Amino acid sequence: MAVLTVFEYIAVLSFAVSGSIMAVRKHMDLYGSLILALMTAMGGGLIRDVMIGNIPPLVLSDASYLLVAAAASAIVYLLYERIETLQYPLRILDAVGLGIFTVLGSRLALDYGLPLYSAVMIGMISGTGGGMIRDLLAREVPLVLQRGIYAMAAFIGGSGYVLIVRVLEPSEQLEPWIALAIAFFIAIFRILSVYKDWHMPRAYHRHGG
Amino acid sequence: MAVLTVFEYIAVLSFAVSGSIMAVRKHMDLYGSLILALMTAMGGGLIRDVMIGNIPPLVLSDASYLLVAAAASAIVYLLYERIETLQYPLRILDAVGLGIFTVLGSRLALDYGLPLYSAVMIGMISGTGGGMIRDLLAREVPLVLQRGIYAMAAFIGGSGYVLIVRVLEPSEQLEPWIALAIAFFIAIFRILSVYKDWHMPRAYHRHGG
Amino acid sequence: MAVLTVFEYIAVLSFAVSGSIMAVRKHMDLYGSLILALMTAMGGGLIRDVMIGNIPPLVLSDASYLLVAAAASAIVYLLYERIETLQYPLRILDAVGLGIFTVLGSRLALDYGLPLYSAVMIGMISGTGGGMIRDLLAREVPLVLQRGIYAMAAFIGGSGYVLIVRVLEPSEQLEPWIALAIAFFIAIFRILSVYKDWHMPRAYHRHGG
Repeated sequence: MAVLTVFEYIAVLSFAVSGSIMAVRKHMDLYGSLILALMTAMGGGLIRDVMIGNIPPLVLSDASYLLVAAAASAIVYLLYERIETLQYPLRILDAVGLGIFTVLGSRLALDYGLPLYSAVMIGMISGTGGGMIRDLLAREVPLVLQRGIYAMAAFIGGSGYVLIVRVLEPSEQLEPWIALAIAFFIAIFRILSVYKDWHMPRAYHRHGG
Repeated sequence: MAVLTVFEYIAVLSFAVSGSIMAVRKHMDLYGSLILALMTAMGGGLIRDVMIGNIPPLVLSDASYLLVAAAASAIVYLLYERIETLQYPLRILDAVGLGIFTVLGSRLALDYGLPLYSAVMIGMISGTGGGMIRDLLAREVPLVLQRGIYAMAAFIGGSGYVLIVRVLEPSEQLEPWIALAIAFFIAIFRILSVYKDWHMPRAYHRHGG
Repeated sequence: MAVLTVFEYIAVLSFAVSGSIMAVRKHMDLYGSLILALMTAMGGGLIRDVMIGNIPPLVLSDASYLLVAAAASAIVYLLYERIETLQYPLRILDAVGLGIFTVLGSRLALDYGLPLYSAVMIGMISGTGGGMIRDLLAREVPLVLQRGIYAMAAFIGGSGYVLIVRVLEPSEQLEPWIALAIAFFIAIFRILSVYKDWHMPRAYHRHGG
């Protein structure tokens, strides 16, 4: 899984950066930013591990994720002005994070013997949980609830991954590459949904908008 | 437990509907509504299962709850205008959900060997947790904190259930009907507290109101 | 551990009081205050126990914490006017709570065989989690994110405790007193940070302040 491990660090780093940027925008200090970065980067994985019974959670048994997230938080503080102008790469990193965490979450759930639909749900929780915690702590309505297409990308990709792994039963050599391909599909789906302005229907209601 | 199982689905459906209605009011799209509905319907049970060690949680090992909640969310979208005018049945469903989840939570905690007072607390968490998550994600002060009589209904009913089961030790045939009776007591207590405008005392404070 | 047990009750009581005061300020009723007090006093420990696999959590297997927190909530309601003027003792109690919960969290994590850095993180989660839940439920930006020095006190103290226990391997008679000394160090560090107005650097950003 060396391929996916590299991308997992990219995902952790990306979510940590998004947490730090939110912290700066909310006038938090350096340690507030560090804590929000850690929670964003690790929140989805923590919930995932508690749900499937992977105790202690991965982020509490492998310090490298903590170090990557802390480094990301520090980088944001040093380079905040430059990073804020770079919306384009940040969105890509965020979408890559969503894709990788979703696939890794579904994969781990299957390893723990959960049924297929649960593996899809665990994938969605892993992919979207960190961002939801970030938004809650910063007093924003979670992005995943405002723009449901975000979760939809994780749902479609996670379902595809789980079905392919269970129906086709790929070899151990092939499987990480399938996971990687699905992660990229989710990321690209997500990026396209932003740039093409894909919207889900909203219910009519008389409270105005 | 066929009797309670039917009512458990009613409770899941009711909480899912309340989550979807909140989502529509907060201008969330269809998938945002679906996610908020799932979290409201399953949040209390997820926290309950993690606390008592029922891993993986029930909602991740039985897909039918997911389907019921998803169907409820879709129904709200199709019939939002009609449902919004039906405050009365919704309040009844919400109170029934509180009652059933509280009793089922206390029951499961006793099955897992927790002490009596813990079974009462787990019942309260099961009954009120989903609504608390719904309100947090929608940036509302949780209803259970504003109107504490809501939790009080769960506390009184849960305590009564736990004491009856432990002291009277009813037969396996009788016990589900006791659970059902207590669930209805909680629901009726809750509904009466709204219509009779029962209030708890508030502390005096100089910050005005 | 009789020494630390006494101080653990002080910590539970202190956090329960802070939760009740927040509830009164937010116009919650008596039961809302009770629930917020319980969540503030027990939230950090609940998350800690779920993370390290201590199921059922301590607060659900020992009723005395519940009783202490409930008593604290009632006292706040009876004496709210008097307590609100006592900012000084409250800050000390709050800082003592942070110190004691941090050390007890790190200690329990070491007992459960977690690596050193995880024990530090679990300590920080234990010390700051309750207050974070309180602020979230009351719709405040969590204090720990606004004033990161709060978490910093827990980080420095927890790291010191973990290193001393692992490197010096103190006797069973000595170890509780070391834990107590570190808890007081954290509390004093925290109190000094308020009165000396220690600040962490903030990133420059153009959104103003």
